[in-house]
Amino acid sequence: MGYGTEKLMEEKVFKDPVHRYVHVRDRVIWDLVGTKEFQRLRRIKQLGTTYLTFHGAEHSRFSHSLGVYEIIRRIIDDVFKGRPEWNEEERLVSLCAGLLHDLGHGPFSHSFEKVFDLDHEEFTQKIILGDTEVNAVLMKVGADFPKKVAEVIAKTYSNKQVVSLISSQIDADRMDYLQRDAYYTGVSYGHFDMERILRVMRPREDQVVIKQSGMHAVEDYIMSRYQMYWQVYFHPVSRSAEVILTKILHRAKHLHEKYYSFKQHPIHFYSLFEDETTLEDYLKLDESIILYYFQMWQEEEDSILSDLCRRFMNRNLFQYVEFDPAKEYKKMAELSLLFKKAGIDPDYYLVVDSSSDLPYDFYRPGEEEERLPIQLLMKNNEIRELSRESAIVDAISGKRRTDHKLYFPADFLSDYTSKKNVKKQIQALLDR
Amino acid sequence: MGYGTEKLMEEKVFKDPVHRYVHVRDRVIWDLVGTKEFQRLRRIKQLGTTYLTFHGAEHSRFSHSLGVYEIIRRIIDDVFKGRPEWNEEERLVSLCAGLLHDLGHGPFSHSFEKVFDLDHEEFTQKIILGDTEVNAVLMKVGADFPKKVAEVIAKTYSNKQVVSLISSQIDADRMDYLQRDAYYTGVSYGHFDMERILRVMRPREDQVVIKQSGMHAVEDYIMSRYQMYWQVYFHPVSRSAEVILTKILHRAKHLHEKYYSFKQHPIHFYSLFEDETTLEDYLKLDESIILYYFQMWQEEEDSILSDLCRRFMNRNLFQYVEFDPAKEYKKMAELSLLFKKAGIDPDYYLVVDSSSDLPYDFYRPGEEEERLPIQLLMKNNEIRELSRESAIVDAISGKRRTDHKLYFPADFLSDYTSKKNVKKQIQALLDR
Amino acid sequence: MGYGTEKLMEEKVFKDPVHRYVHVRDRVIWDLVGTKEFQRLRRIKQLGTTYLTFHGAEHSRFSHSLGVYEIIRRIIDDVFKGRPEWNEEERLVSLCAGLLHDLGHGPFSHSFEKVFDLDHEEFTQKIILGDTEVNAVLMKVGADFPKKVAEVIAKTYSNKQVVSLISSQIDADRMDYLQRDAYYTGVSYGHFDMERILRVMRPREDQVVIKQSGMHAVEDYIMSRYQMYWQVYFHPVSRSAEVILTKILHRAKHLHEKYYSFKQHPIHFYSLFEDETTLEDYLKLDESIILYYFQMWQEEEDSILSDLCRRFMNRNLFQYVEFDPAKEYKKMAELSLLFKKAGIDPDYYLVVDSSSDLPYDFYRPGEEEERLPIQLLMKNNEIRELSRESAIVDAISGKRRTDHKLYFPADFLSDYTSKKNVKKQIQALLDR
Amino acid sequence: MGYGTEKLMEEKVFKDPVHRYVHVRDRVIWDLVGTKEFQRLRRIKQLGTTYLTFHGAEHSRFSHSLGVYEIIRRIIDDVFKGRPEWNEEERLVSLCAGLLHDLGHGPFSHSFEKVFDLDHEEFTQKIILGDTEVNAVLMKVGADFPKKVAEVIAKTYSNKQVVSLISSQIDADRMDYLQRDAYYTGVSYGHFDMERILRVMRPREDQVVIKQSGMHAVEDYIMSRYQMYWQVYFHPVSRSAEVILTKILHRAKHLHEKYYSFKQHPIHFYSLFEDETTLEDYLKLDESIILYYFQMWQEEEDSILSDLCRRFMNRNLFQYVEFDPAKEYKKMAELSLLFKKAGIDPDYYLVVDSSSDLPYDFYRPGEEEERLPIQLLMKNNEIRELSRESAIVDAISGKRRTDHKLYFPADFLSDYTSKKNVKKQIQALLDR
Repeated sequence: MGYGTEKLMEEKVFKDPVHRYVHVRDRVIWDLVGTKEFQRLRRIKQLGTTYLTFHGAEHSRFSHSLGVYEIIRRIIDDVFKGRPEWNEEERLVSLCAGLLHDLGHGPFSHSFEKVFDLDHEEFTQKIILGDTEVNAVLMKVGADFPKKVAEVIAKTYSNKQVVSLISSQIDADRMDYLQRDAYYTGVSYGHFDMERILRVMRPREDQVVIKQSGMHAVEDYIMSRYQMYWQVYFHPVSRSAEVILTKILHRAKHLHEKYYSFKQHPIHFYSLFEDETTLEDYLKLDESIILYYFQMWQEEEDSILSDLCRRFMNRNLFQYVEFDPAKEYKKMAELSLLFKKAGIDPDYYLVVDSSSDLPYDFYRPGEEEERLPIQLLMKNNEIRELSRESAIVDAISGKRRTDHKLYFPADFLSDYTSKKNVKKQIQALLDR
Repeated sequence: MGYGTEKLMEEKVFKDPVHRYVHVRDRVIWDLVGTKEFQRLRRIKQLGTTYLTFHGAEHSRFSHSLGVYEIIRRIIDDVFKGRPEWNEEERLVSLCAGLLHDLGHGPFSHSFEKVFDLDHEEFTQKIILGDTEVNAVLMKVGADFPKKVAEVIAKTYSNKQVVSLISSQIDADRMDYLQRDAYYTGVSYGHFDMERILRVMRPREDQVVIKQSGMHAVEDYIMSRYQMYWQVYFHPVSRSAEVILTKILHRAKHLHEKYYSFKQHPIHFYSLFEDETTLEDYLKLDESIILYYFQMWQEEEDSILSDLCRRFMNRNLFQYVEFDPAKEYKKMAELSLLFKKAGIDPDYYLVVDSSSDLPYDFYRPGEEEERLPIQLLMKNNEIRELSRESAIVDAISGKRRTDHKLYFPADFLSDYTSKKNVKKQIQALLDR
Repeated sequence: MGYGTEKLMEEKVFKDPVHRYVHVRDRVIWDLVGTKEFQRLRRIKQLGTTYLTFHGAEHSRFSHSLGVYEIIRRIIDDVFKGRPEWNEEERLVSLCAGLLHDLGHGPFSHSFEKVFDLDHEEFTQKIILGDTEVNAVLMKVGADFPKKVAEVIAKTYSNKQVVSLISSQIDADRMDYLQRDAYYTGVSYGHFDMERILRVMRPREDQVVIKQSGMHAVEDYIMSRYQMYWQVYFHPVSRSAEVILTKILHRAKHLHEKYYSFKQHPIHFYSLFEDETTLEDYLKLDESIILYYFQMWQEEEDSILSDLCRRFMNRNLFQYVEFDPAKEYKKMAELSLLFKKAGIDPDYYLVVDSSSDLPYDFYRPGEEEERLPIQLLMKNNEIRELSRESAIVDAISGKRRTDHKLYFPADFLSDYTSKKNVKKQIQALLDR
Repeated sequence: MGYGTEKLMEEKVFKDPVHRYVHVRDRVIWDLVGTKEFQRLRRIKQLGTTYLTFHGAEHSRFSHSLGVYEIIRRIIDDVFKGRPEWNEEERLVSLCAGLLHDLGHGPFSHSFEKVFDLDHEEFTQKIILGDTEVNAVLMKVGADFPKKVAEVIAKTYSNKQVVSLISSQIDADRMDYLQRDAYYTGVSYGHFDMERILRVMRPREDQVVIKQSGMHAVEDYIMSRYQMYWQVYFHPVSRSAEVILTKILHRAKHLHEKYYSFKQHPIHFYSLFEDETTLEDYLKLDESIILYYFQMWQEEEDSILSDLCRRFMNRNLFQYVEFDPAKEYKKMAELSLLFKKAGIDPDYYLVVDSSSDLPYDFYRPGEEEERLPIQLLMKNNEIRELSRESAIVDAISGKRRTDHKLYFPADFLSDYTSKKNVKKQIQALLDR
């Protein structure tokens, strides 16, 4: 018996609040969970700065990764197993890809990726294929096994059924995070009948389809997703924290480039600043490291860096107003000038942030691959795209919703010990 | 209208997964939540190392503190308000004490307190009474207000009703943490009918009593507590992580005393090592700081320190066997010798850990104050101690349960590249 | 102190699975619950025949009525109380109207109303205003009090705030039944954040409005409603049971008109058959009475009546196919003929049933009053109709969805002991 | 392929609020559910009169029976399957016995069995073995199959593993009803980690044992059971309703024996009164039939019968006081005399009711078979009785708790229009 088919003497379980139990019988999965690269995910929050808005959202990517694995396991072991369209040899690669799909996430990914032009998916690939404990485990299954797992995550794997389990508009990733994030934030959105959806999934040629009888559960899932995006993921207060975080990174980079002498040298950031991050450097990053620097930088002489770090650590965030970039660019220019006059650097303290989401989309040729539509398997065995059957999904299909906000430090503006008149002008402009 | 009675223009709410919403209408409470000392609780996990066993238990003391506040608020506003035995002037001091009762907790409190002989309650007092943002807010209510809040937490406050809301065998603290810890770990223990308990609480002279009709809900609560202690809080795997954590601290202190030259100097630990921790030093500590050091120390030359840190960071924990210190002291001595022979320092790698709990106790003169019994208010207005009415509580009342385990690194012992025979001897002794 | 303001010595509670507890402090409410007309609601299922599809749905209108009362109580006592726009004198009439709004429902209302041209709202009025225990209790509050309660339920009451608590597109009635029916059926639809919605309700001139900040909770509620209608209330299997029930009533009436000699005389039905149902007759009807007759009628000589009763009692229901009355009327005529040829009376065994729902609608002049739109109270104190703010609600607003099905006894058609050829023809037509 | 192994083309599911879904793949199970004897269970409430105390408890034995089936199915298909100690040929008989174990229950079983000396288990046997649709389905599996199913339910089946799945101190029956009754009443007791318990069940020789690692979940289950008995099943208000119900039956029988001329003849009761109930008679009884009579009997001339029926229908129940039969027999005699003096028949209006429960017991030779202890499978493969390992279970093991109450009509006693003095004497005696 090869390593790839080796079973644990006794099934292991992880107690999970969302799925009750995560079940592990494969030696490979157990060993992957034990690697240091996977354990590192415990130190990276699933929802970045969201815990500053929803205090319960302190859960990590570790929990989510186990959850994705468990959902795929249930689909395969409870639903796909034994069906002629399903090739049981794809089971292990699917499970591994599900477990490892977020492995390359760094601390506060969203902001870091934006500022340092990183791509967590690229790092996931590197961790799987590079000189890591994860790679060592996967290699024991077979010399080409790491590559297969990496391909599934990169969506280039030949068997599209496997790809769509992990990356589609209704995949194990989304089904886990919607429920998990709802659970930890405590919001009442995020409920849908996953057990039903799993039971009506069917492998078909190049994808996974949903039996028509489960359409309403899918509608519910899409509505959950919509609500979670706008009520939780794009919550303006979390975005405020993210704006500050982004500006801290910008400022630190800027200071580094200007040869500013840090009291606490940004050693862990050097390679990020220089745009030559190695895998080894990257794996050292986690949120405790970042928070360590932010805490230390509260004492830096540079008043912008120290102020922003104090804001982030003590949750003294920016306020916001609605903002329409298309119409209000003149106002923005005016505000920028006034900020300068008031002695508040607009590059760091006057920030437009935009969020945008497409709740569901049918296929449009030439667009990004992930937008493969959800296909229903009708009673007559025909395949029909979801929005053609569901009035509700049709109503929101393809409709991108975008929200822009302008962030600024209200406390600075209401401090009238200096520049009172300018600040009043600014406030008047913002209140309008 | 004074600051102490000032209400927010509009009630604020925190979305909370356990209590659905935490409601804040008092300006004082809102301002306290915004202080940096209170925000620091976000960086201290409620259950220390438990997340290494129950991956969902990543919640912080911040959430718990809000929860305790909310429970007290509900008792006072929904049940006590208007009753002649209740003095509404005690409301604010009760709410503040509930919110702030855990303020002095440091990172991984249990281990830190043991190794460095700290007392988080002492630090809670210092933060409330010292030069802090929290103190500044409380002082605005009145010059003696910080002292009153501190006294409630120290259980020396004159009004024992208020004290017993926060520190008794059925207080807001316990009711929050049992439910919260159950929610985040996902275990099915920890459920009891809190709404019922709150509704039957009554202020009486020097304490809070429970109407007889709520006895069964209280029984359920005590059983929840019992199960949570043994299934979650004393879980042997979490204790393994704590053993390692404790040994890291011991080793670092030892190395410091021996003038070991750290690559990463333990600046944040100096005052702990020297036993002269100031409030300022203490407030700088949080779990991201500690994890930063542990991560860095993985690279230290000292093999014990670096090994223990790697174990902690990557969850490569010690194994354990049952152990009876009273009967097996000889075996322990023998094992200690063999460990030395095998080149494994028993001071760090052979550790007895004991857990002990008293699920409920009636009053015994001369014992610690916290053990005030739960009193039932009978239909005839008589007061009776719980265990005299409840057969189930009587059955477990006053019965201390203790558990001892012996922890050791199984991987070292199974590494036969050296000292194979000694290691086999050790294993034989441990297996017995 | 008058009876209308009399409070119980001690608050009473009903344990309720949906709202945890229903709280009663008003003597009037307690006395109303104790009347025989209200207790009768225990013998009338909330969801009629739905329990034959969702076996958990065995709950009665009694539970629902308590739930509606409790929601109104929470709105008034926790949210409206003390607001200048709210007149506390409307409290009792609102609570009574909420509690009693379904009092006039009879057994399996939907079918009975259709067959015997009854109107449960009319009977609610009669019970409140007639010679009943309920009326006696209400009269103790004041001579005009029963009339006020009746007017609220009839939507003619002068204070439209009160009316809209009970009858609007987001009223206590709907909020209770969506959650309650979801709870008892076990479906995952029906979840929305009611606590949030209650907290953002505001009394305004002639209606109750929703603060803008609660819009997403309202969206969720509307989606719940949509899903509950199509997944539960209009489930084709429940409709099959209702088709049979309706046909039993039709047949019994027909036989009565033809002077058929029943073994079990339909005494309780006489006044229904004769279209002269008195209040006293009506109050004697409940589901145990009806089921008694159906059980007895299984033994009647009339083969149609006994067959239909056996089907209903033993859940041997009709099958169905999709059917478009507009296009398939010719097929219907053809089927009808063939049924006759096969010796199966199409009047009882070939039935079209249609369901139709409008998930939400904005106001259209001249339409039925209940369709008052949901109004949002914007931050600037403006009032805006929901669908103008919510893209999702706009998408489904005013879009009526209708579903037609054709029901028939598949077992009769597959019984080839007679008329094999005709039956095959029928099956072919139905399969198409 | 025989009928016994025939699978449905596609798995059928019942939506169940407790177990989410009940899964059916065996044709036999599907056919059994469709029989009229099984459908009859829809018309018999699981908890008899409890709905008059906990209004949510309106669920039927139909739901519970499906639940027991589903639990057994999960144990067998998910845990036992493939284990050498388990014989897969026992699967079908186990499933059928689980589904049918309550088939012989009549309406308000408890009272009916007591008054008419019936035994529902005997009727379960008769339905399975007699001329019924259930028997016809079972016979299709094999000529001896009905007998096997009946033996499992009678606990005489040779394979004690199968028996203990359905009848032991931790069987599928109890696990379903504790959870289901908690769900429908809405109480917070009744929660335990069933998924965990199922996963640690193991077939062993003559019984089913529990792996030691699941001990705490079993403790929790036993505590749930204890609380459900005393908080729900023995609730004094439900017992009041049962006292009245019992007295109605006694009175009707008495009147029948005295040749009283009923307006509504008790046709369905004749064979019960005469103690010669046939299977056919019995199967005609359900709660709608009984409630029909009770409703009609409200109009009988006999004032006791009509009064008791009105009380039951309109929930105008008896009040109660604590009562100790051993010590207070003299008081009882005195009360009985005074009741007669007051013109209130003590045979119907002065009733002692006793409830008694043994929460858990270890084995005592010579006692009833059902009390087989719960056995733990220790790590060393030893078997140990639960109370020897669990301190909590030991504390309540073998301790019978009994409660006596004296029931009487308080409204009669406070009606001073006649016999005022005697009634005051009675009240004084009862208040004492």
